[in-house]
Amino acid sequence: MTNTKGRLYGIGVGPGDPELLTLKAFRLLKSASVVAYQSADNHPSVARSIVASYLTDDQIEVPFHFPRALDPHEAKPLYDRAIVPIAEHLAAGHDVVVLCEGDPLFYGSFMYLFTRFADQYHTEVVPGVSSPMACASAIGIPISYRNDIFSVLPATLSADVLATQLVNADAAAIIKLRRHFSKVREVLRSLGLSSRARYIERATMAEQRIISLDEVEADRVPYFSMILLPTKVQL
Amino acid sequence: MTNTKGRLYGIGVGPGDPELLTLKAFRLLKSASVVAYQSADNHPSVARSIVASYLTDDQIEVPFHFPRALDPHEAKPLYDRAIVPIAEHLAAGHDVVVLCEGDPLFYGSFMYLFTRFADQYHTEVVPGVSSPMACASAIGIPISYRNDIFSVLPATLSADVLATQLVNADAAAIIKLRRHFSKVREVLRSLGLSSRARYIERATMAEQRIISLDEVEADRVPYFSMILLPTKVQL
Repeated sequence: MTNTKGRLYGIGVGPGDPELLTLKAFRLLKSASVVAYQSADNHPSVARSIVASYLTDDQIEVPFHFPRALDPHEAKPLYDRAIVPIAEHLAAGHDVVVLCEGDPLFYGSFMYLFTRFADQYHTEVVPGVSSPMACASAIGIPISYRNDIFSVLPATLSADVLATQLVNADAAAIIKLRRHFSKVREVLRSLGLSSRARYIERATMAEQRIISLDEVEADRVPYFSMILLPTKVQL
Repeated sequence: MTNTKGRLYGIGVGPGDPELLTLKAFRLLKSASVVAYQSADNHPSVARSIVASYLTDDQIEVPFHFPRALDPHEAKPLYDRAIVPIAEHLAAGHDVVVLCEGDPLFYGSFMYLFTRFADQYHTEVVPGVSSPMACASAIGIPISYRNDIFSVLPATLSADVLATQLVNADAAAIIKLRRHFSKVREVLRSLGLSSRARYIERATMAEQRIISLDEVEADRVPYFSMILLPTKVQL
């Protein structure tokens, strides 16, 4: 009797439009017997909602949750426990596809699964369309060109660090805006960059919204939002 | 008699694996009557080679060429002339799909078409899987996480600028290596970063190659190569 182990696939499902899955991610998703995704208690999974129309009734769904903002010491036992249902499916010989918003290894939590499973199981990562590229396409502006330095800056950084980084880059994407939006807008204004900066919410989703920095209500900035500072290169 | 103009689509075809096209790019490509791509004299187009198996005999192919390393003054008339065949197809009511390696607006030349056509024709950009994400998936390492600053650095920058940028970032992708490889390797060594850095050629293509920085022959570094400096975050 053979004991065939299951395979683990981390697939990028892209920024929101279900048509922005890759052909490979779509094929793996359609053939998977088990589909896993992050889902906090009482919060629907965005990654699952992106691929909802592709799921079938005979697929087993496995939600799991990695609580955020813990120190590594606290997080480890919780994360080890969160992945037990996935481990059981793999051990039973089921292939498991893990849905990842955007790209799995770009600011994604798939790495916690990857580091725990890659030694024991065949593990493969399928890259996805990432949000800076999706935002640029939706707005219709080039991000970066030729010898540009392009930086991705989490809005959680201090105003001083953000300002230094923005001065040192030719183009930038500022992510994780939410409650940090006002600080970021002030930094852009103080550097004289706010007319070049572009704000977008929920790029490629049905609720996509592109408005000027001045119009943004700072207390209503969602997680899926971004400020793009496109290249200075004149075309 | 109606005079319906054609529509222009810039589609990202991803890093090399034909299965890394998005469903949307695939659909638009299959339905396009005209397919355009950059192709220098006597050089086959990489973007075309990625989608070769999807093309059909009844599609009209339009190669065009934007010579590089010109100053903007010299480039403008050449670029204006290069796009004439595409303009003729659009004016005749044919939809034109332009193939773009990786993502169209991330270090891509599609912007030269975009700025020339977006005012006159329905123009849409379909984002694609970009090379930093493809390289990270192929190597099996996370790029960036949480509050990381991630920078994309062209190897054409001076050693001093590269060193400053690498010190100021948590994670980085160094692109356009080619004849600049030795300089970049020296910078990484001098900063004590070479053991963390990872080198990869032709990610997701059949000829993909992952070797250590020390093994790289500096005079044989192809255009499709990258050094990734992954996150310092311990998992």
